[in-house]
Amino acid sequence: MSAAPLDIAVAGLGTVGAGVIKLIEANGALIARRGGRPLRVVAVAARERKKDRGVDLSKVEWYDDASRMAAEAKCDVVVELIGGADGIAHATVEAALKAGKHVVTANKALLAHRGTELARIAEDKGLTIAYEAAVAGGIPIIKAIREGLAGNRVSRVYGILNGTCNYILTRMRKSGEAFANVLADAQKLGYAEADPSFDVDGIDAAHKLAILAGVAFGTRIDFSGVHVEGIRRIGSEDIQFARELGFRIKLLGIAELTEAGLMQRVHPCMVPLETPIAHVEDVYNAVVAEGDFVGRLVCEGRGAGAGPTASAVVADIVDIAHGRRPMTFQLPAAELAAPTRLPIAARKGSYYIRLDVVDRPGVMADVTATLRDENVSLASMLQRGRAPGERVPVVLVTHETEEAGMRRALDRISKLGAVLEEPHVVRIERF
Amino acid sequence: MSAAPLDIAVAGLGTVGAGVIKLIEANGALIARRGGRPLRVVAVAARERKKDRGVDLSKVEWYDDASRMAAEAKCDVVVELIGGADGIAHATVEAALKAGKHVVTANKALLAHRGTELARIAEDKGLTIAYEAAVAGGIPIIKAIREGLAGNRVSRVYGILNGTCNYILTRMRKSGEAFANVLADAQKLGYAEADPSFDVDGIDAAHKLAILAGVAFGTRIDFSGVHVEGIRRIGSEDIQFARELGFRIKLLGIAELTEAGLMQRVHPCMVPLETPIAHVEDVYNAVVAEGDFVGRLVCEGRGAGAGPTASAVVADIVDIAHGRRPMTFQLPAAELAAPTRLPIAARKGSYYIRLDVVDRPGVMADVTATLRDENVSLASMLQRGRAPGERVPVVLVTHETEEAGMRRALDRISKLGAVLEEPHVVRIERF
Repeated sequence: MSAAPLDIAVAGLGTVGAGVIKLIEANGALIARRGGRPLRVVAVAARERKKDRGVDLSKVEWYDDASRMAAEAKCDVVVELIGGADGIAHATVEAALKAGKHVVTANKALLAHRGTELARIAEDKGLTIAYEAAVAGGIPIIKAIREGLAGNRVSRVYGILNGTCNYILTRMRKSGEAFANVLADAQKLGYAEADPSFDVDGIDAAHKLAILAGVAFGTRIDFSGVHVEGIRRIGSEDIQFARELGFRIKLLGIAELTEAGLMQRVHPCMVPLETPIAHVEDVYNAVVAEGDFVGRLVCEGRGAGAGPTASAVVADIVDIAHGRRPMTFQLPAAELAAPTRLPIAARKGSYYIRLDVVDRPGVMADVTATLRDENVSLASMLQRGRAPGERVPVVLVTHETEEAGMRRALDRISKLGAVLEEPHVVRIERF
Repeated sequence: MSAAPLDIAVAGLGTVGAGVIKLIEANGALIARRGGRPLRVVAVAARERKKDRGVDLSKVEWYDDASRMAAEAKCDVVVELIGGADGIAHATVEAALKAGKHVVTANKALLAHRGTELARIAEDKGLTIAYEAAVAGGIPIIKAIREGLAGNRVSRVYGILNGTCNYILTRMRKSGEAFANVLADAQKLGYAEADPSFDVDGIDAAHKLAILAGVAFGTRIDFSGVHVEGIRRIGSEDIQFARELGFRIKLLGIAELTEAGLMQRVHPCMVPLETPIAHVEDVYNAVVAEGDFVGRLVCEGRGAGAGPTASAVVADIVDIAHGRRPMTFQLPAAELAAPTRLPIAARKGSYYIRLDVVDRPGVMADVTATLRDENVSLASMLQRGRAPGERVPVVLVTHETEEAGMRRALDRISKLGAVLEEPHVVRIERF
């Protein structure tokens, strides 16, 4: 390995930043032998110098200001691990590109909000902005789609993109406990943040989905076009009904490109037990891509954590070391398409609907008449027990129907006197 | 896309060869836009010119002799889709490399037998020999391991590598039918060859495993070091017992590298229902790689067929078009390690053993005493019904033990008068 080392500056020394440095310490010699150049961390930027991160930082140049490091440090690559769509993370990436340095980032928010713009800047200067770690952690799904499926037209990409939600839903199923209790436990175990809303409200998954759609379809990143629902309204009753119906509930991100346009959505889904992702449990992530020649490709692995994220960051660095320079999002950023946005109202499929109703004569006649009026056809109906005059849950499963009509029916149903709270709706996805 | 086209010669026009040409016809314009060069098929070699393959071959140069085409055709890449470890396939690949052309191949037998040698020839000349299609069809697992896990030390790689066997085992489980009947059906449906031995005896899976081990560990391809057993001895009773015990039976290829050496084996396994590959059904393949930083990565997809194989072949061609030149097997071929071969006798794990015994007093005492003498400890024992003086199946599940001792015990047990046929053994793998 007589080749010159690839010099790296790391912005952000949280668990992932420290993980990247640990990985290079542990496997650096092997990585250099793998036909590339040695990787050398030459600079770091973080606020606290004294904190023990379990890595040797005695020989690196230290910066307090990450964007100054990006501009000034003598290096080939800036690794941005600060996070956030704006502020210092954005400034650091812009400064690095401006200074002619490649960028590797795990920052899904930044890519989801500014991916197309940053890709144009990088490509105009012949630089790489690589982001394998931003989507599904250790799973090399960006590479698999962009290079491994390079011969395919991909029509759909979907997956379990948030480990916190998948952990909570798995625990709810196994323990029978309510969302709030399971969330509290997840927070204690470090699987959920103190403020869990980015995860449980689906925003983190939506960031990742917008990026995946861009690379799978060659379209401009359109985060604001993602319909987003989280998992807070999933009750333990829904988990129980799903089991009876042969489904599991998963928070999925789904992007589909058709002649009519692009639909991007993140919401809880019921998936049949026979589908591979039904069995992806706990904090694991999985991404499924469907190509016209390859058929269905499923990749599953750890979606977060220091080790898996560092693995993805270093894979990107090795690509740069080897001189591999793929397009950021499959096509040159200036040529990315901007297809029509399809709203969630255009979704066609079947629905699980749970109503809390007062058990009295005529309620179900009113409900079913309303569905009929909107052309929503019922596949099955389940009522749990009988309790005249009291609250009972009633579950309806529809045949395939368009969401708009189903929503109109539900608006009317909500207003029926015997219907006690807003209906709980989970879309059924039979992939 | 003003770049010069990449000129391709295709050797072998079976379903896969025709599939590659169809893919380039269908998606060529998109592939060219994806930042690479246009792909242009300029020559083909096949025996029968008149056969209708559903593709336009009017403008390509036609050769009867693939190795002459490899030597003489004016092209950048020779795609070898003839198959077989020797003969014309090998001659074609050698001729292409000798003539300074890159090679893309789907030929697992050739790689398994001559991979290290061909990689050295290619690397010495600065050429690529790419083989994504040789392992697990459409799944981009070679790329995922070699590039996506470039930062990791991989310690184990395993998977469902033969779609025919997985289809047969899935059908046996779902229908309860015997191996021979299901095989006959699979042959009728085109999922198994007229001579099925390459598939059902595990040889095809062993070819793929040897290649996977090389790329995952950076070791010389050692096909003759693979312990191989097929699925012919799996009875419908074993499938039934597996279900009762919470397992599924899968033909797996497993390669593990430890301080002690390299163990490579292909054989039927019982895997717990909770393991992702337990749910990989029908003709699907799946590969699992375990890296020190990434943890467990699982990729599942179609392992055979014209479309998926063409997808993998074209991905390799696109890499060449983009000037991406990875090492053939992770490290330069001249530096690949040759670790000690660990024999199957060194395998440690638990075992499912089915004995057909005459139901009479003292039989089980003899069996269990023999196991005790070889230090094989029993976890459980199942006997199906009672039939004094007649044949009954008895199932033993052992605790973790070394295979050598278990084999010695079984040799002695086979010789007991009441044991009617050679014991049926399936290794239990709790990944």
